[in-house]
Amino acid sequence: MDVTRDNFAKALEEFKQAIGGCDFVAIDMEMTGLYETKKLQPSRLDTANERYSKLKRSVESYGVIQVGICLFTWVDTQDENSGGFYEARPFNFNVFPCTSVSGIPVEAHFGCKNTAFEFLARNSFDFNKWVYSGIPYMRSEEARQLKAERTSMLTNRQPRAEVDERHHVFVRDLERVLKVFVASREKTMRHETANSYQRKLVYELVASHDTLGARSRPGFIEVFKGTKKTMAQHTAHKLRQLAASIEEARGFCAIIDLLSAARKPVVGHNMPLDILHAYSKFYRQLPESRVEFESAVLRFLPVLIDTKYIIESTPGIKAKYGTSNLDEIAPVLEKEASASGSASGGDGDGDGGSGKRALIRNHANFTRDVSRNMHEAGYDAYMTGATFIRLLHLEGGLNLSAGADCEDGRELVLYRYINKMYLAINDAMFWQLGTPEEEQSGENGLDVNMESASGSGSASAASEEQMPLLSGDTLFESEQQG
Amino acid sequence: MDVTRDNFAKALEEFKQAIGGCDFVAIDMEMTGLYETKKLQPSRLDTANERYSKLKRSVESYGVIQVGICLFTWVDTQDENSGGFYEARPFNFNVFPCTSVSGIPVEAHFGCKNTAFEFLARNSFDFNKWVYSGIPYMRSEEARQLKAERTSMLTNRQPRAEVDERHHVFVRDLERVLKVFVASREKTMRHETANSYQRKLVYELVASHDTLGARSRPGFIEVFKGTKKTMAQHTAHKLRQLAASIEEARGFCAIIDLLSAARKPVVGHNMPLDILHAYSKFYRQLPESRVEFESAVLRFLPVLIDTKYIIESTPGIKAKYGTSNLDEIAPVLEKEASASGSASGGDGDGDGGSGKRALIRNHANFTRDVSRNMHEAGYDAYMTGATFIRLLHLEGGLNLSAGADCEDGRELVLYRYINKMYLAINDAMFWQLGTPEEEQSGENGLDVNMESASGSGSASAASEEQMPLLSGDTLFESEQQG
Repeated sequence: MDVTRDNFAKALEEFKQAIGGCDFVAIDMEMTGLYETKKLQPSRLDTANERYSKLKRSVESYGVIQVGICLFTWVDTQDENSGGFYEARPFNFNVFPCTSVSGIPVEAHFGCKNTAFEFLARNSFDFNKWVYSGIPYMRSEEARQLKAERTSMLTNRQPRAEVDERHHVFVRDLERVLKVFVASREKTMRHETANSYQRKLVYELVASHDTLGARSRPGFIEVFKGTKKTMAQHTAHKLRQLAASIEEARGFCAIIDLLSAARKPVVGHNMPLDILHAYSKFYRQLPESRVEFESAVLRFLPVLIDTKYIIESTPGIKAKYGTSNLDEIAPVLEKEASASGSASGGDGDGDGGSGKRALIRNHANFTRDVSRNMHEAGYDAYMTGATFIRLLHLEGGLNLSAGADCEDGRELVLYRYINKMYLAINDAMFWQLGTPEEEQSGENGLDVNMESASGSGSASAASEEQMPLLSGDTLFESEQQG
Repeated sequence: MDVTRDNFAKALEEFKQAIGGCDFVAIDMEMTGLYETKKLQPSRLDTANERYSKLKRSVESYGVIQVGICLFTWVDTQDENSGGFYEARPFNFNVFPCTSVSGIPVEAHFGCKNTAFEFLARNSFDFNKWVYSGIPYMRSEEARQLKAERTSMLTNRQPRAEVDERHHVFVRDLERVLKVFVASREKTMRHETANSYQRKLVYELVASHDTLGARSRPGFIEVFKGTKKTMAQHTAHKLRQLAASIEEARGFCAIIDLLSAARKPVVGHNMPLDILHAYSKFYRQLPESRVEFESAVLRFLPVLIDTKYIIESTPGIKAKYGTSNLDEIAPVLEKEASASGSASGGDGDGDGGSGKRALIRNHANFTRDVSRNMHEAGYDAYMTGATFIRLLHLEGGLNLSAGADCEDGRELVLYRYINKMYLAINDAMFWQLGTPEEEQSGENGLDVNMESASGSGSASAASEEQMPLLSGDTLFESEQQG
């Protein structure tokens, strides 16, 4: 589903309905750039702290223009052969930073790399759709701050801010004009303003009169009179409008709120930048230090799985396919899957020999506008999730013997990959994320540090419940809010 | 004429033909943003140096996406009534920083403001045209540096650069493989590379062998054998290709080179940011200090005239129109002109009472795709030039008595406005630019500081030759190069 601000309300509803029941979520993002200079690019010689600083710098320098989120849900068909299939719901969200709330501009700065734009153009990216129809977004903390400021303006609860020296004349004139207006028989007056700062001053001054109100008109502000009661009603109306306008400005962040609250496993490919962008753009400011981030990120999304790490850390897979680039491995896995899959259904997927098949099918609401463009975020998210499913089938085949003491090796191998994001530095191939505080105790808690750093140790299954490959619910209790 | 990379060669030719004969040039630009934060915005309290720093910071933070240049040429028709008309050639150049030379990426970073993009969208800006079809550009100094680097690579004249530690294995392997290849009977071999740094290493190593050459292929580099003579021919061919590729990369800068060489008066509206962008993006790095810039800019463009300064500094005009915003005053002046103009021709313009008319007509090659969108750079440049012509007619009318000792007041009032860019700070309304060194002496030199800072002194005409309103040639001798 390609989502712009025009169909966002519908997509949000669809997402809300589906997120709770899905088994895992795959994500991907398109950005306006990666690294400002050669010096800021990742290097194998980076320490873990240096790498975090470089990633943070990248995320804070560049923008996100597309977020792909694909929900995968196991549908049990009681079919003897396959047991069922994965139903995919790919969303391609086009996002653009919120530009105004209640008509007052909200500014955001982001960097761009010419070569990143050219890369997007080579992949048919529509820059007009992005700017003209991108879904707005604004993090909770900015929304809260803005709401407080605007509410104070509307209700005049805060002392008036120091007036910029060059506006002293403007304020003096306005005070005089308002006095004359209050004493007159006129019901309304117009006051012209040259910029948003002057508009703010008008609202503040008007709010200091119990019986005056102000509303924005093109090029001027209309000041009007009323009783204390009608003014109170007017203020209440403005506050409701403000709340609605801020909710609209938060826009895409509502999707990320739902994703975070659902506590589902989130799968990405070479995912550190995607995760840092998701955190920084739609959730909170990034922590200063890597150590703080490692636990903070799991309060945001509790289970992260990186398919690039799965490939790079599994010699059998790496040797067979010779690459861990999604562009290269995903189509090969897809071709293998459809070759070994059943003839029934277009989007078949097989497990290559075990006799069981895990089909992937698009949910009926998501079949019409599915792009097949690599590097469109929605499609890349779908391909990442599909690759994950196909890799785990392979993985089960490849490594089952290592976990011979377990009944079902598939869950076992999965735990080996949890909360390790791919990271090529000299002394590590992955970025081990900490355990979030709320998960550290309690019966459903998982010890995600149980694997040795080499990734070859054995592990015990954490749950008795067996689901195909994995289920969000077997990892953590669902903590859906609202 | 709307210009993209597809019709740039034709536009360049058209520009080259017309620039020498035109009387003045009007410019305008569209940018990706203005000021990063409130603190970096201009304030009336700025000192001149602070303002220069803020403007420089803006220019170095944000990109230029459209450059409007409109050439105006007086055509003498011997018509008793009007004497002739101004022929306008408006160019709307869509520009995007060069992304590669000879297939090797060239990176450029630029900032964007969400609200600037929204402003452009409100004015129907086509972001796809910008990225997909923007004319590339690269300043001379970067082009020279790149040419030197790439030439050294091709001819192996420079000592090989220190190899990045993590590529030691790659280089050792490559050296071994090349040795085997030289000794073998094979005529070509392919060497796979993962990134541009590795490709650079291959070219460097291959160039150290007299009888080996390399050419880029998709995903790998082909190494081939030849005699010393064929290799020399191959290198000469590559150098010609490189020169052509760099000329193509310079792209739009060729237009600015022609503009600078033509020494024509350049008219803008509220022009400091336009001029700093033109200097910084297409000519040279901006000087550190304001004082250095003030003389440097006149070596770039010798005569700058700001229509906003004309309006703001002429009480009669300011009082009559009540605004110096181009959006507001330009359509009013246009309406007045067409109301008082003759019925012949759609685009008439009159001088409102003196009996003489100065018509503005588009040159026949420029009538077809003329937009009428305010905030499209080409149209804004046209409107700026048209406004300039109409203001000077008014100005002549308004102030002729002040210069009663002159035969023709129009040139007189013009000199009052030369090289003063509009600038609202506490102790000045304009930015007085210095006299370029090469113009400080010689018979055709002008003392542009002849006016007192208040702008109300009298002045003597510097040239006997009288042209309608102004002529580039009467100000400075044309110094066309190439």
